[in-house]
Amino acid sequence: MNEFEIIDKYFRPLSEGHDDFQNDAAVLKIPEGHELIVTSDAAISGTHFVTDASPENIAHKSLRRNLSDLAAMGATPLAYQLNIAFPVKPQESWLSAFTGALLRDQKEFGIYCSGGDTTSTSGPLSINITAMGLVPSGKDFTRKGAKPGDHIILTGPVGDAFIGLLVLQKKIKTVDNDYFINAAFKPTPRTALVDILRDIVNAAIDISDGLVADLNYICKASNCGADIQAVAGIFSAPALKTMIPPSDLLTGGDDYELLLAVPPANSESLLKKLTTLGLAPVKIGEFAAGQGVKIRDQNGQPITVQTPGWRHF
Amino acid sequence: MNEFEIIDKYFRPLSEGHDDFQNDAAVLKIPEGHELIVTSDAAISGTHFVTDASPENIAHKSLRRNLSDLAAMGATPLAYQLNIAFPVKPQESWLSAFTGALLRDQKEFGIYCSGGDTTSTSGPLSINITAMGLVPSGKDFTRKGAKPGDHIILTGPVGDAFIGLLVLQKKIKTVDNDYFINAAFKPTPRTALVDILRDIVNAAIDISDGLVADLNYICKASNCGADIQAVAGIFSAPALKTMIPPSDLLTGGDDYELLLAVPPANSESLLKKLTTLGLAPVKIGEFAAGQGVKIRDQNGQPITVQTPGWRHF
Repeated sequence: MNEFEIIDKYFRPLSEGHDDFQNDAAVLKIPEGHELIVTSDAAISGTHFVTDASPENIAHKSLRRNLSDLAAMGATPLAYQLNIAFPVKPQESWLSAFTGALLRDQKEFGIYCSGGDTTSTSGPLSINITAMGLVPSGKDFTRKGAKPGDHIILTGPVGDAFIGLLVLQKKIKTVDNDYFINAAFKPTPRTALVDILRDIVNAAIDISDGLVADLNYICKASNCGADIQAVAGIFSAPALKTMIPPSDLLTGGDDYELLLAVPPANSESLLKKLTTLGLAPVKIGEFAAGQGVKIRDQNGQPITVQTPGWRHF
Repeated sequence: MNEFEIIDKYFRPLSEGHDDFQNDAAVLKIPEGHELIVTSDAAISGTHFVTDASPENIAHKSLRRNLSDLAAMGATPLAYQLNIAFPVKPQESWLSAFTGALLRDQKEFGIYCSGGDTTSTSGPLSINITAMGLVPSGKDFTRKGAKPGDHIILTGPVGDAFIGLLVLQKKIKTVDNDYFINAAFKPTPRTALVDILRDIVNAAIDISDGLVADLNYICKASNCGADIQAVAGIFSAPALKTMIPPSDLLTGGDDYELLLAVPPANSESLLKKLTTLGLAPVKIGEFAAGQGVKIRDQNGQPITVQTPGWRHF
């Protein structure tokens, strides 16, 4: 199969019901009274995922980390552009598994592929996705609305994806390997929550660089500080069993839970609502006057972290 | 400088006047009565440009090929997402030259950078851009409106970029090396023409894969054929001097002129208008009943092409 036959057979079906692969570019209709939210993330073999990752896992990770950014902005998924650079001509079995996983995610999160680019590279497999979503005008979430006293609420535990990475790198073995690998590759972007969170939260971000780093972004943008505690529920039960130090779990990235700044008056009802939906939300502290993130462990002792989060160079 | 300092110093200024680098994603306001046009293209060192290309040339090529797709759809540039994967930590001199060239192009084509992703890779320098533009609703150009009898009009000569590639690969020497290298790296996307072409053309495409291949896309989408002639003006004067066979110039890509299907009644006035704007438009033939692209040389003899255009695998 040549490039065009591959596009026809495997990539065009990702756009089914739309006309986008027919032309030089896609046409997106934006309903009145809405803004477009746009985000891009690269997923490169050896940098963002292990080189022997399955095509399904690569697909899930590549798309979902973008969807998580849409959720952090309060947007409902609309469409995505998919650029893939292949180091060798791809096998049909690989293409079939990869696009099959994308199709399942498209269905689950209500998004379609509006176009993209396939090419060859002398380097590793590289996937660049740009995801687009819709939000009612003026209702996007930002990082800059947190106020001292706002509760810091996580939509779920952090650290599992970091442990998954250690498992994949064969640095540790656990009794819950599958659980952690799933957390690393198949996070659940919280796009289903945006309607619930709208008009309830003052600020939002997703945990991609690591809890401490991401919380710091909100603090800086909002010109405030934060006090957090390693309370019960901040880590999952399987994570606690591994005995990995809290400082590592608090700074490992890729969890893709949302971190929210919630006015105290909205806090309890929101926690209840999220629990009803089957999530395990947790209040981990409060925003405060001043600046910087202060962390205490479950015994009230300060935790020091060396590097708050992930950097590429 | 670490990753975040580099982003702050070099990439954030590409978004000046917008708030987009503050949050997880960009917010784009789409004016009422408009559709969004979206296109993505990769530019990978060694695949899309020579490995010793200058940062300025890489910037121009990466952005402009996307802008050309917007023009081919009838869209005015709005914003773009910029994903870069660096094989080694980039030098400040490189970053300064690269982003400086992007800024100049942003000014020239009326677009800004709404966000993106910087990362590291074990492979070659890779740039993935997703460009977005606006078109009045329902007024986008497509590939499928060409009708038998429509004139085939090019907004400028083809083949120069192909010769530029040969020069860069040191396969040939010419007396106009700089002219051809400029054609290869700094094409002029025809976004300034979209308002003029709207309601005038039946179909449009940009010459990226090669004239024959791109004309074929229109023929297939429009369910018709095309007869073209290697008339005067289809190649530039410097190209004619090189004595490179027409079949190579007709199938080399990356020219980024527009190929238009124009009803005969609109043809002459359009050619005149484009000439007034300083372009060198040329009518190269007509769309016809049937299918496939038939080519004749300046003496009326059929030209056969081996491969109509570029493929990655």
